[in-house]
Amino acid sequence: MKLYNTKETILDDTKRGIALVAPHLKEVGHGVGYLNKKFNDQTIPVISGGGAGHEPSDFGFVGENLLTACVTGQLFTPPTADEIVAVTKEVTQQKKAFFIVKNFPEDVAAFEKAFEMLSNEGWQIASCLVADDISVDNKSLKKYRRGLAGTVLVEKIIGTLAQRGASLESLEKVGKELCKQIFTIGLAFSDSILMKSHAKDLTLGRGDIYYGVGIHGEAGYRKETWKPSELMAREIVNKMRLNFKKYKKEGVALLVNNLGKLSPMEELIFTADISELLELEGLRVDFIKTGSFMTSHDMSGVSVSLLLLQEEWLDCLQVPSTAYSWPNNGEK
Amino acid sequence: MKLYNTKETILDDTKRGIALVAPHLKEVGHGVGYLNKKFNDQTIPVISGGGAGHEPSDFGFVGENLLTACVTGQLFTPPTADEIVAVTKEVTQQKKAFFIVKNFPEDVAAFEKAFEMLSNEGWQIASCLVADDISVDNKSLKKYRRGLAGTVLVEKIIGTLAQRGASLESLEKVGKELCKQIFTIGLAFSDSILMKSHAKDLTLGRGDIYYGVGIHGEAGYRKETWKPSELMAREIVNKMRLNFKKYKKEGVALLVNNLGKLSPMEELIFTADISELLELEGLRVDFIKTGSFMTSHDMSGVSVSLLLLQEEWLDCLQVPSTAYSWPNNGEK
Repeated sequence: MKLYNTKETILDDTKRGIALVAPHLKEVGHGVGYLNKKFNDQTIPVISGGGAGHEPSDFGFVGENLLTACVTGQLFTPPTADEIVAVTKEVTQQKKAFFIVKNFPEDVAAFEKAFEMLSNEGWQIASCLVADDISVDNKSLKKYRRGLAGTVLVEKIIGTLAQRGASLESLEKVGKELCKQIFTIGLAFSDSILMKSHAKDLTLGRGDIYYGVGIHGEAGYRKETWKPSELMAREIVNKMRLNFKKYKKEGVALLVNNLGKLSPMEELIFTADISELLELEGLRVDFIKTGSFMTSHDMSGVSVSLLLLQEEWLDCLQVPSTAYSWPNNGEK
Repeated sequence: MKLYNTKETILDDTKRGIALVAPHLKEVGHGVGYLNKKFNDQTIPVISGGGAGHEPSDFGFVGENLLTACVTGQLFTPPTADEIVAVTKEVTQQKKAFFIVKNFPEDVAAFEKAFEMLSNEGWQIASCLVADDISVDNKSLKKYRRGLAGTVLVEKIIGTLAQRGASLESLEKVGKELCKQIFTIGLAFSDSILMKSHAKDLTLGRGDIYYGVGIHGEAGYRKETWKPSELMAREIVNKMRLNFKKYKKEGVALLVNNLGKLSPMEELIFTADISELLELEGLRVDFIKTGSFMTSHDMSGVSVSLLLLQEEWLDCLQVPSTAYSWPNNGEK
């Protein structure tokens, strides 16, 4: 990280920037959250949140046909249950809300506690837990199932359905289905300089690749030396193949996420390599986004998310959004 | 640069990615250019171009209310006059076009030759030359006046006016005025690894800052060691002050451009620091964009562009575009 003032003021300084670039957002919860000012409180509010350090998640995805609001904690630390409750109450008078939660133990605990607190006050809350990470822990051979950049595709679809008037029950049903059909795997080129204390598992040399990392410097499954883009793409697509039950002639949405420090040219090259390999596998790539969606503070890397599409989901993805960080859809 | 296959295939691989993410573009000129498929050939086509290695410039700015088409050369090498002519002829039947040219000797030569070739065939061509760089050469004390990221603001305004039906003459007049009122200055944190041969003037240590660099590894005016964001912003705003003739209570458009390898968080922090200092100077920041607009292949750095606004120009900037890399405007 090069452009900052002090480590202590990074989050406050970031918030000053958000206020400037995203004037459609209103601060809520005494500054821990952002609400889409245009939210019409007659449809179910969709709220997500988590630690800071993953910008533009989540503020960049608050807007029409996406999140209603977000709640952000400290660097790599989720908001507290009290903060989630405060934001939720400020967002809606309906006593109903839908939460999108990333599968990290601290995030889950905070949102579950908020769920309980609100339920005790007569609120109806539904949620979905995004656990898209298919990286495998080498010791236990279990999948990590962390919540990664696939979350943004879930937010886009749920947010659009909510704005179209979907009920809490129907959002819950779709959320569950979506979370079963979405898979992400990432790779890192460098660890964080500022965040050594957090990134304890991730130590990389200058020419290393580490497959299967998380978004807080967590371990992956294999270190290698640098390879051409196509070979890195091959490793990722092979891991995807193992996770799709059906895998022929299906339409998929592809999200290539810049975890940090990659140029637009690199994003484009890797997107082309991944997409070509997916088509060789017999998949049909119906929707593609590439860019910075969920970064990992001061790290360099990329992640790939695939969602096995249903027709309505594709339509939800294609509808434009006013959210600051949802790229324009060039119409075909 | 981490994600690539071979140095030789970087541009072709990038083009494979562009075809995927920007389906509203049509390849023209045997692949050296892109045209907005929706262009209605009854308004003046606005065409820009230059070397590759500055993605998302220029393909990312082809779309509604922005460029009609772009022409891209090789890495850091502008297209030839023949290529510019071929693209222009494929874009329009009107025998009229407006060129937006960045002020580098090779770019100017290619566009001037294309201008001459088309004029000889009876075409009417007008153009503007963006020379927004206010960095000063230490030996001659002359301003470099290279064409930098401010070009994108010029493209947005001229592109919108053209689509609204402005004549070639009126575009030329506005283009000239715009180019007088736009100033850019950049700073680099690292040079290019792949492009050592090009970046001969720019050699930076790990903790260095180099103020006033170009977008091809050209020299700046001063090297320093790392400073907090606010102090870097101060240096930039001081240089801006020297270049504005009028400077009180004016409305300005601010473009903070990620030259490479900076995170969304860094973009936001620096945008906040710059904007605050501009307001302390008595300027009113009416329009802000931050992100990757014109990168410098494999370099790390940031540039700041300021445009002294007129009311119609602000309106043109605010109109949405379908261009892939023009960020959404959050409405206030």
